[in-house]
Amino acid sequence: MAIDQDRLWQRLETLSRITDPERPWTRRSFTPRFLEGREWLAAQFRGAGLETGLDAAGNLFGRLPGADPALKPILIGSHSDTVPSGGRYDGILGVIAALEVAQSLGERGERLRHTLEVVDFLAEEPSEFGLSCIGSRALAGALSEQHLALARPDGMTLRDGIAFVGGRPDEIASARRPADGVAAYVELHIEQGRVLENERIPIGIVTDIVGIRRERITVTGRADHAGATPMPLRADALVGAAKLVEAAHERALATARDEQPLVATFGRIEVSPNAANAVPGEAVLTLEVRSGNEAAVAAFGAGLLRDLRPTLEALRLAIAVEPISHVAPTACAAGIRKAIADAAASLGLATRNLPSGAGHDGVFVARTEPIGMIFVPCLDGRSHAPEESITPGQAGDGARVLAETVRRLDAGLG
Amino acid sequence: MAIDQDRLWQRLETLSRITDPERPWTRRSFTPRFLEGREWLAAQFRGAGLETGLDAAGNLFGRLPGADPALKPILIGSHSDTVPSGGRYDGILGVIAALEVAQSLGERGERLRHTLEVVDFLAEEPSEFGLSCIGSRALAGALSEQHLALARPDGMTLRDGIAFVGGRPDEIASARRPADGVAAYVELHIEQGRVLENERIPIGIVTDIVGIRRERITVTGRADHAGATPMPLRADALVGAAKLVEAAHERALATARDEQPLVATFGRIEVSPNAANAVPGEAVLTLEVRSGNEAAVAAFGAGLLRDLRPTLEALRLAIAVEPISHVAPTACAAGIRKAIADAAASLGLATRNLPSGAGHDGVFVARTEPIGMIFVPCLDGRSHAPEESITPGQAGDGARVLAETVRRLDAGLG
Repeated sequence: MAIDQDRLWQRLETLSRITDPERPWTRRSFTPRFLEGREWLAAQFRGAGLETGLDAAGNLFGRLPGADPALKPILIGSHSDTVPSGGRYDGILGVIAALEVAQSLGERGERLRHTLEVVDFLAEEPSEFGLSCIGSRALAGALSEQHLALARPDGMTLRDGIAFVGGRPDEIASARRPADGVAAYVELHIEQGRVLENERIPIGIVTDIVGIRRERITVTGRADHAGATPMPLRADALVGAAKLVEAAHERALATARDEQPLVATFGRIEVSPNAANAVPGEAVLTLEVRSGNEAAVAAFGAGLLRDLRPTLEALRLAIAVEPISHVAPTACAAGIRKAIADAAASLGLATRNLPSGAGHDGVFVARTEPIGMIFVPCLDGRSHAPEESITPGQAGDGARVLAETVRRLDAGLG
Repeated sequence: MAIDQDRLWQRLETLSRITDPERPWTRRSFTPRFLEGREWLAAQFRGAGLETGLDAAGNLFGRLPGADPALKPILIGSHSDTVPSGGRYDGILGVIAALEVAQSLGERGERLRHTLEVVDFLAEEPSEFGLSCIGSRALAGALSEQHLALARPDGMTLRDGIAFVGGRPDEIASARRPADGVAAYVELHIEQGRVLENERIPIGIVTDIVGIRRERITVTGRADHAGATPMPLRADALVGAAKLVEAAHERALATARDEQPLVATFGRIEVSPNAANAVPGEAVLTLEVRSGNEAAVAAFGAGLLRDLRPTLEALRLAIAVEPISHVAPTACAAGIRKAIADAAASLGLATRNLPSGAGHDGVFVARTEPIGMIFVPCLDGRSHAPEESITPGQAGDGARVLAETVRRLDAGLG
C-alpha cells in the first residue's frame, strides 16, 4: 500500500517548525504554541477528508468511516506536544504518519471495513501539572477529579488547561472508551535508543512497554576524619554504594540476551558529608529497574540487597530501602505484533522485537484495548534533545508498515 | 615526675568555657573571644612563674630559663584557637599540659639544663584567611608577604589580624627561629581517631604527620535514557567510579598492617545528570591519599588508574586526573620518639606507634627543628565536633608522659 513519503516529510518539517523560536523544538502542551500546532493539524485532518473534532478530554480525532458500522474502530496516532527542546519527531511522527495512512486510503478510494480514527492525544509528555498521558488517561477512564484539580505553578488547574485547549472538562467521562470499544490501537514512534540503528534494522516491533520500579536506597556508615581513621576502622558508605552499583550492573547485563531483558540504573547518588577529607557517612541512591518482565522488575532490588547484605554488614554498613514508584509493564497484543511483523515482511523490511524502555500513551490505552507499537531508528539514539534526527526514508518505512498493519488488522479483526 | 592533674583538668575546663555561648566549643582565631582566652592563658603563664610574651607573629610564649644558657631551648605546646564547635580539647590540651609541666618543674625547684618554652601557636586551625598554622609558619620562616596580604571576607588582611592579636607584622622575620635553634619540639594532642581507644592503649607515639595528596578524577561516559539504552550499549560513568572506589579501598586496606599504612578516601562524588532516569554520563570524584610513606602517597592514584584503565576502557569510559594538592609527610625525630617511649615505659603506660592523619604545627616546626608528638585517646575518635571528649586521667597520662619526656630530653640532648 503506497503512502506519499514526500507529503509525510513536508508535514513533519512544517509541524516541527511550529516551535518556540528561541528553543527549538518546543511545543509544550497547554500553551498558545501548542494550539497553533493543533490548528494546523486539524486543518490538515480536514483537508485529508477526515471527520475532525476534539473529544471532551481535548484529544484531537480525525475519522475515516468504515464500511461496516458494527465494527469497532481501529485507532492510530500519537501526540503533538513536546518536552522542552526535544520534539522534532517524538510524537508527531506517529500523528502525521497516521494522518498519511488515512489520507492515502481515502485518496485511493480504498474503504476499510473498520472505521479508522487518527488521534493526537493531549499532553503525553509530563507537563507543569505533574502528570503525563492526560488524553490517554481520559480514554481509559483514568483521569480523576483529583487529576483535574492539579494546579501548575501559575495557578491554572488541569481542568482550566483542558478547557483552554478546547476540551470540555465537565464532560470528561464522555471521552472514555468502553472496554473493548476499540479494535486495536497502533502507534508509530521513534525508538529513542540505539538498538535498531546499531543492528541496522529499519523496523522495531515493541513487545512490551516496560514496567518501571524506583527505589531509594540509603547506605549508612559513619562519617569520620579521613586522616585519623585507619581503613580497618571505617564504615565508608560510598564503598558500600559502589558494591551495589557494580552488582546491579553485572546482574542486569546478564539479562541482555533474554527475551525480556532488564535494565538497572543507579542514576542518582548523594553522598554526605561529601567532603574531600571525610569518610562518607551516608550515600542515598536511586535504583531504577525497567523490564517487560514484571516479576523480574519486582524482585530485582530485593534480590540485590539480599545477596549483598552480608558484604555490606562486614563493612559495618546498614541499608534501608524505600519504594518510590512502581508501574507494571504493558504487553503489546500478540495479534497486533503479528500484523506488524507480517506487514514489514510483505514490504521487505527487516524487523526486531524489542521493549519500549520509555512510557507511551499505550500504557493507558492498553487498560481497555489491545495495543501495538512500531519503532523506527533515530540517529545515535538521541531523543528529548534538539539533536533528535531521522531520515525521510526511516519515516516513510514506518508509515508504510503502519499502513500495511492497518490493512491487515482491518482484514483480520472482527 | 609529678604533675597536678586536678589543676590541669580545671584549666582545661576553664579555657574551654571561654567559648561563643551559642556554639560551644568555639574560640576562633582573630576574634575578641580568642583574645579573651589568650588573656586568661597569659595570666596563667605569669602566675606559673613563666616569662610571658608574644613574638612578632602573635605566638604566646612562657619561658622557664634553664641552667645552661648555651643550650638551645626545648619547646612544648600546641594552640588555643578552635574550629567552629570543636575545640573542647583539640589544641588546648597541649598548651595547658605544657604549662602544667613547666609550672610543676618550677614549683619543685627542679631546674632543667635547657630553657623550657611553652608555646601557644597562633591560628593552627584554618581561619577565614584561608591559611592554617600561621604562627608555626612564622617560626619556620615560611610566612610570606603574600600570606600577610591574604584578606578574609570582611576585608581584614592577615597583617591586620596579626596586629589585632598583639603581634608585630612588620617585624615578622624576628619570629623566625634559625635552623636548629630549638633542641626539640614536643606536642601533646588528642588522637582525633579511634586507634588508641580500640586497643585500650593510653599513649600514642606519632611516627609521622602524614603526607596528603588530593586528585580530582573525572570519569566520562555517556548520558543516555535509562529506559531506552540496553545495558550492553551503555557507558555508565558511575559504574566506572564504583570500580575506582572499590579498588582504592581494597588497596589501602592491604597496607593496614604496614609500618606506614596508607589511607585512601573518595570523600566527594558528583554525578551528572544525576537523574533517576538517566544513565550517568560523568562522575567527578576527589581521591585523598594519606601516609607517612611519601613514595606510596605519590604513586597511589597513578597506580590505581593504570591498573583499572583496561577495565574502564572496556566499559567505554575515559578517565582524566588533575592534581589538587600534595603535602609531603613529616617524620617525627627518632630521638624524641625514643624519649617518649622511655618516658611512658617508666610510668608504666603502654604505647603504640601510629601516624598522625591530621596536620599539626609540627609540620612547619619540623622544617627547621626536630619534633615529636604524643597522642592520648579521645572518646569514640570524635574531634572537630561538640562531642569531643577525654577523661581527666587521659589528660593526666598525657601530661605526665610529656613531663617525663622533657626531663629525658633535657638530660640527653646537647
